[in-house]
Amino acid sequence: MPYIDTKNDIPGIRGLMQFRPDAAIALNQFAQVLLADDASLSKLDRELIASFVSSRNECTFCMTSHGAIAAHHTGGTYELVEAVWRDYKSAPISEKLKALLNIADHVSKGGLHVTPGDIDAAREQGASDLDIHDTVLIAAAFCMFNRYVDGLGATTPDDPAFYEIIGKQRAEEGYLTKSVLIKD
Amino acid sequence: MPYIDTKNDIPGIRGLMQFRPDAAIALNQFAQVLLADDASLSKLDRELIASFVSSRNECTFCMTSHGAIAAHHTGGTYELVEAVWRDYKSAPISEKLKALLNIADHVSKGGLHVTPGDIDAAREQGASDLDIHDTVLIAAAFCMFNRYVDGLGATTPDDPAFYEIIGKQRAEEGYLTKSVLIKD
Repeated sequence: MPYIDTKNDIPGIRGLMQFRPDAAIALNQFAQVLLADDASLSKLDRELIASFVSSRNECTFCMTSHGAIAAHHTGGTYELVEAVWRDYKSAPISEKLKALLNIADHVSKGGLHVTPGDIDAAREQGASDLDIHDTVLIAAAFCMFNRYVDGLGATTPDDPAFYEIIGKQRAEEGYLTKSVLIKD
Repeated sequence: MPYIDTKNDIPGIRGLMQFRPDAAIALNQFAQVLLADDASLSKLDRELIASFVSSRNECTFCMTSHGAIAAHHTGGTYELVEAVWRDYKSAPISEKLKALLNIADHVSKGGLHVTPGDIDAAREQGASDLDIHDTVLIAAAFCMFNRYVDGLGATTPDDPAFYEIIGKQRAEEGYLTKSVLIKD
């Protein structure tokens, strides 16, 4: 049960969003731009960054939800996202994505933890200004979403089937469909 | 100079926003709902929470900008916001706002740092579910905005006159005017 009476029994961030729909609409538009777009970074890369930062912030709900979305972007297998959670430096991902996850890791600690050296290292692996911008903003955004969910004690389901449904929905529909705001 | 080439010389978060206007539009709509609304918490309370969290995150740009906006909501005096930066527990604010700033402080450390006791203490001072929800979301949002600004090394002006202009504009116009996205 969340710390506030949300007047609904929807688990996770959607229950909170239903309580404050005007904020939720803007947040979902923001998520759509940041995550459901293949410009520059792929949707898979974007969801991996989101899930990785959530794992660093120990937010089980966001880590598992966005891990499931990432898994659906790779055909439904969790091996890749689990490797990133375990140790992204040895995960089977590009050197460019590793350098971006290093930036995301530093963002999760605080904006001032990102150094010019981190940025240079990403550029050396081919990261563009847009890749770097979006990595920092996705990582920063999940420092918000994670705190929103856990700071209000949102319900975090244990059942893997719950996250499977979210993973499939968001991967297929993005963040601007009715299923984000209205209980299915 | 920011870490990326934003193709403009606008300081602070607006320079970053100009580089990614589609994300910026959603972020400003979100800020408008969260900060430029007197529902439940006043605009002053909301900007004080924003500036306080930014001070905890050592984000000079956001702390000073939103401090200036708060100052403009109190007729242009900085005494109140400076007292909150120094030690909110002894600042001349309501016991309810102190209890909400305690929640915001814990959100800045991480969502799991917020305890049911923090929530109960705010309720005892008259905080509603909406007050608590918005406090957590404002605090979480500034954990994002602060990381966005400093994680990309956005230019942070030294000149107090810069923040005076921002303070006046945002206090009077909110977050959905052209001056947020387009250089004046």
